[in-house]
Amino acid sequence: MNFAASATRQRAAGLVAELQERICSRILDLERATAAAAERAASAFTVDDWESPPSERGIAGYGSTRVIAGGAPLEKAGVNTSVVTGAQLPPSVVAQRPELEGHGFFAAGVSVVCHPCNPHAPAAHCNYRYFEAQAPDGSRSAWWFGGGADLTPYYPVLDDVRDFHRALKAACDRTNDDFYAEFKNWCDRYFYLPHRNEARGAGGIFYDYIDAERGTRDELFAFSRAAGEAFVRGYFPIVERRAAQAFGERERSFQLLRRGRYVEFNLLYDRGTLFGLQSGGRVESILMSLPPLVRWAYDERPQPGSVEDALQEYLQPRDWFAEDPFA
Amino acid sequence: MNFAASATRQRAAGLVAELQERICSRILDLERATAAAAERAASAFTVDDWESPPSERGIAGYGSTRVIAGGAPLEKAGVNTSVVTGAQLPPSVVAQRPELEGHGFFAAGVSVVCHPCNPHAPAAHCNYRYFEAQAPDGSRSAWWFGGGADLTPYYPVLDDVRDFHRALKAACDRTNDDFYAEFKNWCDRYFYLPHRNEARGAGGIFYDYIDAERGTRDELFAFSRAAGEAFVRGYFPIVERRAAQAFGERERSFQLLRRGRYVEFNLLYDRGTLFGLQSGGRVESILMSLPPLVRWAYDERPQPGSVEDALQEYLQPRDWFAEDPFA
Repeated sequence: MNFAASATRQRAAGLVAELQERICSRILDLERATAAAAERAASAFTVDDWESPPSERGIAGYGSTRVIAGGAPLEKAGVNTSVVTGAQLPPSVVAQRPELEGHGFFAAGVSVVCHPCNPHAPAAHCNYRYFEAQAPDGSRSAWWFGGGADLTPYYPVLDDVRDFHRALKAACDRTNDDFYAEFKNWCDRYFYLPHRNEARGAGGIFYDYIDAERGTRDELFAFSRAAGEAFVRGYFPIVERRAAQAFGERERSFQLLRRGRYVEFNLLYDRGTLFGLQSGGRVESILMSLPPLVRWAYDERPQPGSVEDALQEYLQPRDWFAEDPFA
Repeated sequence: MNFAASATRQRAAGLVAELQERICSRILDLERATAAAAERAASAFTVDDWESPPSERGIAGYGSTRVIAGGAPLEKAGVNTSVVTGAQLPPSVVAQRPELEGHGFFAAGVSVVCHPCNPHAPAAHCNYRYFEAQAPDGSRSAWWFGGGADLTPYYPVLDDVRDFHRALKAACDRTNDDFYAEFKNWCDRYFYLPHRNEARGAGGIFYDYIDAERGTRDELFAFSRAAGEAFVRGYFPIVERRAAQAFGERERSFQLLRRGRYVEFNLLYDRGTLFGLQSGGRVESILMSLPPLVRWAYDERPQPGSVEDALQEYLQPRDWFAEDPFA
């Protein structure tokens, strides 16, 4: 297969590159403003552009891994793209689409994870991707979009959660009136730690295998772009306003403990992480999602009624736009 | 099923309780000596004795979780026992012993993880367990022993690794001349991170489904006890002699980074962890194995030729008793 084999593939590769630029540039603005206020040099992205020749499994491609470490307001941020083709759709896809067994694939995606310094600022993630399957005779057999964005607060503020969801909802509503409710529920089910009986965070949207039944390809490209834009507009203002909020050892300690749940989710359940590692993906690019510093402590629980205890209320599915989501 | 249904079950439960006492008491001696030298109070174990009524899956049992946090020389140590019966052998066992599908089980085990403060002291783990399967008519259909012990150094010292293996080899040799070579290789294969292409550490022994073909039950009970004793004799003297070795930010930073690999192994691959979480085991007891503080950094690699780089040589299978294991 050839990366430039179709205008659509070029368009998908272009879209993820564009979203990467947009998100990196927003992060750099934040880092520069914080650095200027502190009269020091701003953090910069470490950029690793990679290209991989066909692996044993016939997967080849290229991408760009961009990471900031030790910044402020972001202790760690990663914004990655990858554009790959493979001779065989992975088992995780075939399990859901058995008619595509033995088909080749093309995938272009952008993946973002932000771990802020300030425990009052939530962590967040987004991922947007376009897939094509190709029959052995070379014809395109299917195409679909997948993606999502979710917010992981440690000291949650209802207005922050609402702002994040509102931005995503606006992007959904512009394409299809059903998308937000559907993708919000999907997110609540996906970012869930069954062993802890809690969600990873306050949700967002998640979707996969979205194809011609839900919109034209043009409409769905526009939706991916809008959802990426919604992440920028819905998330970074929260980081901005929480970055100056005072915190001490107590808040830092709770943030590090809660980051442990983030690691548990990503290594135990996240299909993207597991697929990437199992299919011989670029390990450091995949694991850039893990927080910079993490703590595990035996059976440490917040005091009932404490501000840390209040987080639990946010880790179950809620209608964030209800007058009182906790009623 | 009744926990006291047979003298053998009582014997297994007694053995794991005894090994727990033995190991906790050795750890407390270490903690007390360090505390006395520093003229402060010694750390004590947090003890959680638990009992669980039959779960949805028909698993019931009891155990004792004992954890030290923030001690010295051990930053975190957990010594857990569990004695459980279940109505159905878990799929992970049935996959290896299909003839036991639908059989009930009894299991008694002790599990130990130590994460020392000093980066020069290796982390270590051991686990010893006895299993029985029971046919639907109530007759015992099979019994076997499983277990292992492994060492995870960050600044490895060949003599430390040899001491650890020598103690385990002595316990193996007393029972069966083939055990050490066989179980050492099994350990090298099991404690391996395919995505990193490296072992978790410098190995040890690992074995499972060891039954009447390899020894009488009496002999294998004696072997479990000897292997537990070997962990005490092979590991804690290393912690003792490394505890006073000077270290700074650099060594601590490398220790935290390498602990990330420990987390990756336990959450991505360790069958015990995954089985425990999937079968609704006691989450905090299972995850006590995770290190207290961990760091992930994008693509951070030791300088070629540095002392940190030398660790890699220890993360591939070696004959530690060879004159030059690295030849």
